[in-house]
Amino acid sequence: MGEAERFDLVVIGAGPGGYVAAVRGTQLGMKVCCVDKDAKPGGVCQNVGCIPSKALLDSSEYLHLAREHFREHGVLLSEVKLDLRAMMARKERVVRELTDNVRTLLESNGVHLLWGTARLVGATRVEVTPGAPATGPVLLDSRFILLATGSEPVALPSAPWDGIRILTSTEALSLDSVPERLGVIGAGYIGLELGSLWQRLGSTVTILEAMSRIAPPADAQVGRALERALRKQGLVFRLGTKLIEARPAEEEVKVSIESDGGREDLAFDRLLVAVGRRPLTRGLGLEDVGVAVDSRTGHVRVDAQYRTSVPGIWAVGDLIAGPMLAHKASAEGIAAVECMAGLPGEVDYDCIPSAIYTSPEVAGVGLTEEQAKERSIPYCVGTYPFSGAGRARCLGRADGFAKVLAHGRSGRILGAHILGPRASDLIAECVLAMQLGGSAEDLAGTIHGHPTLSEAVHEAAAAVRRCSIYAPRP
Amino acid sequence: MGEAERFDLVVIGAGPGGYVAAVRGTQLGMKVCCVDKDAKPGGVCQNVGCIPSKALLDSSEYLHLAREHFREHGVLLSEVKLDLRAMMARKERVVRELTDNVRTLLESNGVHLLWGTARLVGATRVEVTPGAPATGPVLLDSRFILLATGSEPVALPSAPWDGIRILTSTEALSLDSVPERLGVIGAGYIGLELGSLWQRLGSTVTILEAMSRIAPPADAQVGRALERALRKQGLVFRLGTKLIEARPAEEEVKVSIESDGGREDLAFDRLLVAVGRRPLTRGLGLEDVGVAVDSRTGHVRVDAQYRTSVPGIWAVGDLIAGPMLAHKASAEGIAAVECMAGLPGEVDYDCIPSAIYTSPEVAGVGLTEEQAKERSIPYCVGTYPFSGAGRARCLGRADGFAKVLAHGRSGRILGAHILGPRASDLIAECVLAMQLGGSAEDLAGTIHGHPTLSEAVHEAAAAVRRCSIYAPRP
Repeated sequence: MGEAERFDLVVIGAGPGGYVAAVRGTQLGMKVCCVDKDAKPGGVCQNVGCIPSKALLDSSEYLHLAREHFREHGVLLSEVKLDLRAMMARKERVVRELTDNVRTLLESNGVHLLWGTARLVGATRVEVTPGAPATGPVLLDSRFILLATGSEPVALPSAPWDGIRILTSTEALSLDSVPERLGVIGAGYIGLELGSLWQRLGSTVTILEAMSRIAPPADAQVGRALERALRKQGLVFRLGTKLIEARPAEEEVKVSIESDGGREDLAFDRLLVAVGRRPLTRGLGLEDVGVAVDSRTGHVRVDAQYRTSVPGIWAVGDLIAGPMLAHKASAEGIAAVECMAGLPGEVDYDCIPSAIYTSPEVAGVGLTEEQAKERSIPYCVGTYPFSGAGRARCLGRADGFAKVLAHGRSGRILGAHILGPRASDLIAECVLAMQLGGSAEDLAGTIHGHPTLSEAVHEAAAAVRRCSIYAPRP
Repeated sequence: MGEAERFDLVVIGAGPGGYVAAVRGTQLGMKVCCVDKDAKPGGVCQNVGCIPSKALLDSSEYLHLAREHFREHGVLLSEVKLDLRAMMARKERVVRELTDNVRTLLESNGVHLLWGTARLVGATRVEVTPGAPATGPVLLDSRFILLATGSEPVALPSAPWDGIRILTSTEALSLDSVPERLGVIGAGYIGLELGSLWQRLGSTVTILEAMSRIAPPADAQVGRALERALRKQGLVFRLGTKLIEARPAEEEVKVSIESDGGREDLAFDRLLVAVGRRPLTRGLGLEDVGVAVDSRTGHVRVDAQYRTSVPGIWAVGDLIAGPMLAHKASAEGIAAVECMAGLPGEVDYDCIPSAIYTSPEVAGVGLTEEQAKERSIPYCVGTYPFSGAGRARCLGRADGFAKVLAHGRSGRILGAHILGPRASDLIAECVLAMQLGGSAEDLAGTIHGHPTLSEAVHEAAAAVRRCSIYAPRP
């Protein structure tokens, strides 16, 4: 092991938290090294998360449109066949293009990229064991170290992954055939997205969920409507169902569950276990250097500027508390590096959107109606169905609604929730409104193009004060 | 002719300006009558404009996707055939649903609906000649009269419509077969949308335009990129081309043009003349009661509160100056009625979005780069390509870019222009930002979900100050 190379900033993890922080560091004049255990930068999000899942969801949506909706539009198809291999190859290509983009971005900004396993060996020192070819560990000295190693799926002892019958989301994104019967444990966004994906590709999908509702962090009204829409598409939900055990058998996986109806045995061809994710800190050497970790959740503890308990070591993203979202990690990565540079970096946690890429999509920001009630905040709510938006009817995607919650006295927007076509893009306007402290009247007073999907958001905002032109009168 | 029925407000025209104004009137406690010459409310927009064109564009986009893109996504189709009759029937259904919605909305709000031709016979009196069954004219007395009769296509004497070979947009939305060769006069949004439509359905489309560029009101950079994209799709543009004459022949239409290359004769199966629209005032009795009209443009003159030169008579929408857009008319309709009621109704003309529903879509708001230059406003510009937005790559729709213009000193957003997937919805966020007086930094400092199309807008805003994480360094 030679002399340690010196940096201003070493970022551990090249996911959406880390790589964005590394670029920001060079923009602020720092000498930056970014270490990742994977040769392909972009982290879980780009390699085995957001991007491949959306690539497959978008492709499978085309298959669904072709099978179910094209005839009505006057597009006649004599036969529609899935070429799963081509769909997977396209997904891989999209992933490769985007990870190549990230690499190019890092390199063109002068970030030193290192492929290997990083371990803290001091408050200013990182040891990296290279990926391949193996040449022995490398030492990095740095004024700042940013931990951005992300998260990993939570294992269920009663349903241990075997990579063949009992799968993680990573494996469920790369199956080489369509399982006839797919079981999914967990009705969070991963279970719903991957369940939707394989249902569209031809699987009979059963989603088992311990809670009595799906998509738990979403607004309950949205969650109920999503459940109805997905049931109509053919997904089977078994809510309030406890998994007793899952056991791979020769050609299938046996699953024992318990619900109000008593104990029951089910069988699937494949079982996806998607019950959540947890911070990935294993092997990082946190204990050795004394970085404090929340013993219950496993999160690295940080202050408002993302400093851990060890001076010089900072942490962002899935590793710390808060929603495990790529854009939250990126925002924190930028804020942390700006704080290192003495700039006023901060993240407004009230204004972070989230989305579920089912069809219709779900997106939300801010408080749900339940949260407003729990906190005894006086609120007004306005909703508007997409069936009232001309463009949604033109597209033939008129399911769902937009919902705006505003403070009962000031009118300030507390939250917005959308179930509908392009919800993930439509929410952007609501996030901006909240970020600027806007009111429902501000949204309602802004001219929205006609015919657009965004008109549903506009009318929901107008309905908050019962002054909508379109909403039914109270 | 019996006694005149008395109203607080008579609205002439049930298009997006009129029907919205009528509803707002009842909401403010007025007794309202809305007169339209068509039994189907909704005006040009809903009956023969925005809605049917978007219904056909969205259907034809599915046909295009099926033919050109599905194989790559792993969706194999052995044969793709257009059923034009089904596509048209669906379009008619969408139009009917939406015009029914407008009727229900008007009725449920207590608006008195009258079908017939309205004529001003005094400052407070309207005579309506009923549509069918003919029962003789009806007189309406009203404290306020709102003119909202909209616009009609501008005729070209050198290419007179015959409804068979030489068509208006209305006819081009209802052809019963796909013309082999379609000529289009005018590269404005109507020509581009209907040209795109028929090109996707199988026509060879040639667009003749007198100016040297397409989509004249759009930002020039966007216009050039749109032209490239449409040429790539197979549309033929003949710019800087003057129409000499178009003449229907037995089986075709002969067109003589003149350009730099001299005089030339062309032949098409059908020719769409779409060179603009003009205020529809004919037969309205404006002269009789003394409502002042701009002699050059034909627009009804109004003050900032939409009052014409005759007290009690107001006007909004395509009838008055400004962009001929449905949402502009609706906003004016609401503002006019609020002004009648003594409320502070106003429309911010700097914050009206517009869109062209080609593929990729175009949308814009505020100043173009050319306008900023002309007015000598110091500005910064940021652009970002959709190819850098993961969701666009997942969808396989990564053409185009977002562009944000901000004031060089204050950073306040002057305009935003988007060419890309869902541009018409993505612009909503930019309009809101401008409406609230936001800066490019406000947009850049707002967290955008990942992966979404809206990230392109976010990065364009960040690039304004060269502080984007993703944009190439200067």
